[in-house]
Amino acid sequence: MNATGSPTAFSTLAACYQQVRGTTMSLCAPLEVEDYVVQSMPEASPVKWHLAHTSWFFETFVLKPAGVDLEAIPSQYGYLFNSYYNAIGERIARPDRGLLSRPTVAEVCRFRAAIDDAMRALLDRADDAWLRRLGPMIELGLHHEQQHQELILTDLKHAFGRNPLRPIYRDLELPGGEAPGPIRWLDYPAGLRRIGHDGPGFAFDNESPRHRVFVVAFRLADRLVTNGEYRAFIEDGGYERPEFWLSDGWNARNTQRWTAPLYWERSADGWRMLTLAGMRDLDEAEPVCHVSYYEADAFARWSGARLPSEAEWEVAAEGRPVEGNFLEDERFHPAPLAASGATGSPSQLFGDVWEWTRSPYSPYPGYQPAAGALGEYNGKFMCNQMVLRGGSCATPASHIRSTYRNFFPPDARWQFSGIRLARDV
Amino acid sequence: MNATGSPTAFSTLAACYQQVRGTTMSLCAPLEVEDYVVQSMPEASPVKWHLAHTSWFFETFVLKPAGVDLEAIPSQYGYLFNSYYNAIGERIARPDRGLLSRPTVAEVCRFRAAIDDAMRALLDRADDAWLRRLGPMIELGLHHEQQHQELILTDLKHAFGRNPLRPIYRDLELPGGEAPGPIRWLDYPAGLRRIGHDGPGFAFDNESPRHRVFVVAFRLADRLVTNGEYRAFIEDGGYERPEFWLSDGWNARNTQRWTAPLYWERSADGWRMLTLAGMRDLDEAEPVCHVSYYEADAFARWSGARLPSEAEWEVAAEGRPVEGNFLEDERFHPAPLAASGATGSPSQLFGDVWEWTRSPYSPYPGYQPAAGALGEYNGKFMCNQMVLRGGSCATPASHIRSTYRNFFPPDARWQFSGIRLARDV
Amino acid sequence: MNATGSPTAFSTLAACYQQVRGTTMSLCAPLEVEDYVVQSMPEASPVKWHLAHTSWFFETFVLKPAGVDLEAIPSQYGYLFNSYYNAIGERIARPDRGLLSRPTVAEVCRFRAAIDDAMRALLDRADDAWLRRLGPMIELGLHHEQQHQELILTDLKHAFGRNPLRPIYRDLELPGGEAPGPIRWLDYPAGLRRIGHDGPGFAFDNESPRHRVFVVAFRLADRLVTNGEYRAFIEDGGYERPEFWLSDGWNARNTQRWTAPLYWERSADGWRMLTLAGMRDLDEAEPVCHVSYYEADAFARWSGARLPSEAEWEVAAEGRPVEGNFLEDERFHPAPLAASGATGSPSQLFGDVWEWTRSPYSPYPGYQPAAGALGEYNGKFMCNQMVLRGGSCATPASHIRSTYRNFFPPDARWQFSGIRLARDV
Amino acid sequence: MNATGSPTAFSTLAACYQQVRGTTMSLCAPLEVEDYVVQSMPEASPVKWHLAHTSWFFETFVLKPAGVDLEAIPSQYGYLFNSYYNAIGERIARPDRGLLSRPTVAEVCRFRAAIDDAMRALLDRADDAWLRRLGPMIELGLHHEQQHQELILTDLKHAFGRNPLRPIYRDLELPGGEAPGPIRWLDYPAGLRRIGHDGPGFAFDNESPRHRVFVVAFRLADRLVTNGEYRAFIEDGGYERPEFWLSDGWNARNTQRWTAPLYWERSADGWRMLTLAGMRDLDEAEPVCHVSYYEADAFARWSGARLPSEAEWEVAAEGRPVEGNFLEDERFHPAPLAASGATGSPSQLFGDVWEWTRSPYSPYPGYQPAAGALGEYNGKFMCNQMVLRGGSCATPASHIRSTYRNFFPPDARWQFSGIRLARDV
Repeated sequence: MNATGSPTAFSTLAACYQQVRGTTMSLCAPLEVEDYVVQSMPEASPVKWHLAHTSWFFETFVLKPAGVDLEAIPSQYGYLFNSYYNAIGERIARPDRGLLSRPTVAEVCRFRAAIDDAMRALLDRADDAWLRRLGPMIELGLHHEQQHQELILTDLKHAFGRNPLRPIYRDLELPGGEAPGPIRWLDYPAGLRRIGHDGPGFAFDNESPRHRVFVVAFRLADRLVTNGEYRAFIEDGGYERPEFWLSDGWNARNTQRWTAPLYWERSADGWRMLTLAGMRDLDEAEPVCHVSYYEADAFARWSGARLPSEAEWEVAAEGRPVEGNFLEDERFHPAPLAASGATGSPSQLFGDVWEWTRSPYSPYPGYQPAAGALGEYNGKFMCNQMVLRGGSCATPASHIRSTYRNFFPPDARWQFSGIRLARDV
Repeated sequence: MNATGSPTAFSTLAACYQQVRGTTMSLCAPLEVEDYVVQSMPEASPVKWHLAHTSWFFETFVLKPAGVDLEAIPSQYGYLFNSYYNAIGERIARPDRGLLSRPTVAEVCRFRAAIDDAMRALLDRADDAWLRRLGPMIELGLHHEQQHQELILTDLKHAFGRNPLRPIYRDLELPGGEAPGPIRWLDYPAGLRRIGHDGPGFAFDNESPRHRVFVVAFRLADRLVTNGEYRAFIEDGGYERPEFWLSDGWNARNTQRWTAPLYWERSADGWRMLTLAGMRDLDEAEPVCHVSYYEADAFARWSGARLPSEAEWEVAAEGRPVEGNFLEDERFHPAPLAASGATGSPSQLFGDVWEWTRSPYSPYPGYQPAAGALGEYNGKFMCNQMVLRGGSCATPASHIRSTYRNFFPPDARWQFSGIRLARDV
Repeated sequence: MNATGSPTAFSTLAACYQQVRGTTMSLCAPLEVEDYVVQSMPEASPVKWHLAHTSWFFETFVLKPAGVDLEAIPSQYGYLFNSYYNAIGERIARPDRGLLSRPTVAEVCRFRAAIDDAMRALLDRADDAWLRRLGPMIELGLHHEQQHQELILTDLKHAFGRNPLRPIYRDLELPGGEAPGPIRWLDYPAGLRRIGHDGPGFAFDNESPRHRVFVVAFRLADRLVTNGEYRAFIEDGGYERPEFWLSDGWNARNTQRWTAPLYWERSADGWRMLTLAGMRDLDEAEPVCHVSYYEADAFARWSGARLPSEAEWEVAAEGRPVEGNFLEDERFHPAPLAASGATGSPSQLFGDVWEWTRSPYSPYPGYQPAAGALGEYNGKFMCNQMVLRGGSCATPASHIRSTYRNFFPPDARWQFSGIRLARDV
Repeated sequence: MNATGSPTAFSTLAACYQQVRGTTMSLCAPLEVEDYVVQSMPEASPVKWHLAHTSWFFETFVLKPAGVDLEAIPSQYGYLFNSYYNAIGERIARPDRGLLSRPTVAEVCRFRAAIDDAMRALLDRADDAWLRRLGPMIELGLHHEQQHQELILTDLKHAFGRNPLRPIYRDLELPGGEAPGPIRWLDYPAGLRRIGHDGPGFAFDNESPRHRVFVVAFRLADRLVTNGEYRAFIEDGGYERPEFWLSDGWNARNTQRWTAPLYWERSADGWRMLTLAGMRDLDEAEPVCHVSYYEADAFARWSGARLPSEAEWEVAAEGRPVEGNFLEDERFHPAPLAASGATGSPSQLFGDVWEWTRSPYSPYPGYQPAAGALGEYNGKFMCNQMVLRGGSCATPASHIRSTYRNFFPPDARWQFSGIRLARDV
């Protein structure tokens, strides 16, 4: 997939398919068979479920509509690997995905291979008419698979985090950095702006239509909040002072007994944290990560600031280069700010951590979900979730763009989610 | 309280106090002692808790700051009757409010009387400086009490609804009407508009600041959705077809086993419904009521329409007279549309039922919560709730205005909440 | 009801009826209307439910079979006041009893009066045939009502215990005592014994048939365990040392966060406890009370002893006078041992506190439940409960006997339940 | 292990160790790696947990006391593989056992091998003093391992039962049989009997001391209840008629939505059932299996009979040959009665299915748990469980005896548990 995210010819589409599907398998290379099986919470899925579900997507939305019938695939796979498409039929309860020892990893890999063979054959013989009809679906399937690449890493990290043996995904160097100077505030004037996707490249339906929005003047932090800054919040009693918290957030903090971001552990020698490269000392220069919306919001209020709206974020990000610490960098962890010079423009917008916005996930004016089952991809989740922007260290570079809207419930912490501050003028 | 909602002199304030506090007690006149005690679900409160909590509000935010100490009031009342003000101290768990037989109703009434005596004395001796300092707090306390007047009715209705004896609150006539003609769609052009409160009258902090918002062209239904229309949705399998529902909504429907609005019951002779005047046959001409946001949203999708945003609603309502079926009408139930002639402007905007909007409850740009404990009044609930507009048959007329933002979780059904449709152009 | 517990003539039966029904109402005399309504946990019931349920019993099992139809009684009362008789029809869910404000206390009292009138009329005109047929049912109904007299007190105490105002049921003197000397162990030889009820007096079906049981030689404590002894267990880390606890008990202690008996509170000045006469300092000489089976069992293990079996208890109690601190003493609280002289026989067997035995509640060999709905009275609870013996300070004296088998789940603490130790020889 | 269950020399003990440990691994031979990982409910454990826990037992209770320190074993294994021994330290929460992908199956097998090597070395150099000290512990460890052999099969069956693919453990022939004739009732006279273990062979502490018990005359069914007989109970509305059920049982039936034994499925062609050899048609001649105590008790009441007490069962079984359908038969499923001739003595006492008794699991008179951590093996579970007798098709033949007391909570269904009826005379 190229930087524009949109293949324009058969050869490109086939190459993209090959590349994206291959990346998924590469991510799994360090795993033991057992690592594919476990599900550490209802919101996470076993790795082998991700491998199978992404394949089921191509089977269901490309191969079947194209008239390709894969006889050898057990009929129950549809039941097992459907995720939330009610229009496609029944499916196994989400929290039960970790109960299944079968199909085995080897069987799932055979399923993937069968899908890949059929897809290759289809792409080989495709003509222009096919491309117009099924090309968009294949492209969607690849972006869908990239989303699951990120989930494979975050779900695996969560499972490893529940295991007292603290397994290591990959033994990586994670070079530290110097704590950046104070946040600089960048000013943006009030005005009628346009946000949302329009144009030739790929985008999900929830990014459309591009539309006008009036943005009040605001200030945006030039960088992400660091671990060091977040530690100061903790040490100032941030988790014990309800005045900083939303009511639901305070409730979540009580029920789930939060005292620090997920994966932080207090030891005799200070804070330590879990990474995909194992346990290590807290690096104060790194962007803070694995915080919920509630924690991000409470931190912002403690700071005398607030979180940006998604419109504000997009206004600041539009037209800026999509550069940063992505999946391809194989750090799998946010990185300290490289250079903290005053550039006059925001750093770390893309990659490192998803940035919580204060915007609930809602349809844009005039939003129309896709027809059929794919209409369930985005629209039906537009309630009780908050928008995050910018991608993370587990997001493929070709997957992200300034109009991209990610969304999670406000208490979710297992994604690489962090904080950028904003302020009223 | 006058139509502008804002007293301008001592005498007015004292008269408002008298009137609002008296209305609360009048609402309780038909009750048995036992009716004040029960709590039928965690979200509801016993009537005597409402009576005490609204009095505690004046004690805490007016009398104590004014240096008035009421010695005779047991010290535990603060613990018992605080609601959600963390800054004021600990409080009894919300679901436990119905466990308390003491203080008795008589004791609570004595508590109210003691507060009223002290408040009257305070208002009698108040001078201009007092008025500037404490007047706004008293005014807030009266609007707060009006909110609890509505809750007294809805919580009581819920408790009666759980009781197989189906008690009757008041034996009222509920004259029916003729089913209105088809919905007419009113067109509103795109443009930069202003919404939110500004000016001299009272408003809650969440209605400010008044700010510009770009509104895309839209169409709004000229009236509310009726029971008859909603029945057609049910009969068309609305509750069995996931394609109409948000994901969380479908989950709520499954978990809570919804098959119709709250208080509807299918009998051999057709639908019947619970009102505060007892059980009666469904009146197809009445506005549908006691639906959750999820149901309202599903109904709208089934209709090929959508719910309005709060900005759209306010654009349509601004400047229109605040007239309708309110608490003072003592119907305590939505009324059929009086005249269905084509007026070119929306009917039933105020009163009858709160209208669900598609807008999550979020702060306006530049929103600042009040300082101190009262800052907890609104701001900390700005997550996981949806905005409702327009007031209901249980709302005092002097309490509502076009900028008023009510909010409830999307699965709440025990309020008088209904549906107005909107459409993209 | 006389000491033998069995009326032998019309006049006696009518007098018993009058006395027992009157006692129930006397127990309620100190209550406020609100006190009748609340339900502080699913296992407890509102007082007005007890008043109505005991009346429903006579209506259902005596008046209806006798052909007496009370037209004025609302048909839903059967649904509301049935407890667990599946054979009699549906009933309201137990945890929902506290949701009902209606029928009011006054209506319930009218229901009781109507039942009493009808019962008196029935008893007036009864002849020998009637007596043979319905006399046993009436007698059962009176013993049933006595059980609910005890529950009225324990359920009320529980509700008062949840209320931060700590209401007082009655303002009573609770004279203290001197801590008794060390426990003396009474020896009982091995042998084939008979336990269970046989003979003319009243007994519940679960006390029959009288049967042979081989009892291994054992030793029984001559008195109950005191608060002082139990405090030593607490101070020795009894609640922190799993080696004393059954597995399910340790789990209950963790889940319910037990650190002392129910109603004990640690204050700056030492332990205090809730009584029906309000809060007071712990009296070390009193029998310990409001402990679960798990706590009683853990205390016994810590003591190097064990709890007696119900057969052992009955062997020790048979033939001994039924004397002690009962409901009629109106202390409503266990009393210190009056005289601690060595009598050679066990003290405090009856009254004060129910004594947990190590015996699960099971049918006696040859047990036959009564036919029809009354067969549900006892037999269907013979699982997951433990037997308690001897009655308490809330038990009417005429209600208890040496063969009486009470039963509660092992984690129940709100009854007046205490500890007597036993030992192997 | 020989039929007496008790090794008498080094060589025997070493051979027993070899044999039992080898059997465990043989049972796992048909499994895929993934099958070792899953945990289908909190009561079940992953197979690899069983493999590790049984090894941890020898490490903890034999090797460490013998001074053998296995340095290579990760220190967290003690935390991971301890089950319920509070005296040994903290342990992972039971429901979390299925979250662990590491240690891998290969690592667990290396752990087993290291333990086996050390055990062999220990046994090689053991002298008489060692044997006296550690022999009983080793023997206990082997019986403990045999219990887990049975659990490996039942936990695996449960996991396969949750999987829509319905995996097959082993592809076995399960020859059917002819439905037996009517139950014959065998008479046993009243009398003072002795039950419990005494003598040289191995037994668990809960089987002691042997003691006298008076047994009332009773009648015992000469065979187990069959699927066909149980089907008649279902078809007679057994699951819809509360009069047959214990109160807690009826509640379990409602909450867990029981309509048939676990693993039964109604298809268009009649009942089918899951076995370890896959799905097959219900064989009416086989003993009914996978019923809870509540279902067994309800069936008995429907039959006009009851379940036997454990004393009755033991009186009938004492002295009879320990023969039946055991683990070694590798059927892993109950078998139809071979010959239904009137033998005058009960058939199927051992093997096939564990037989629910009406006896709650309680200590025998004079019972003393072992000292130290092993005292937690049995005694602390003596509450809220029912005794089962006789072993099953998943029990090793050398593991069972007439005094053996198994125990499970009354709602457990995933064991091979069935029904034998008894009657009063």
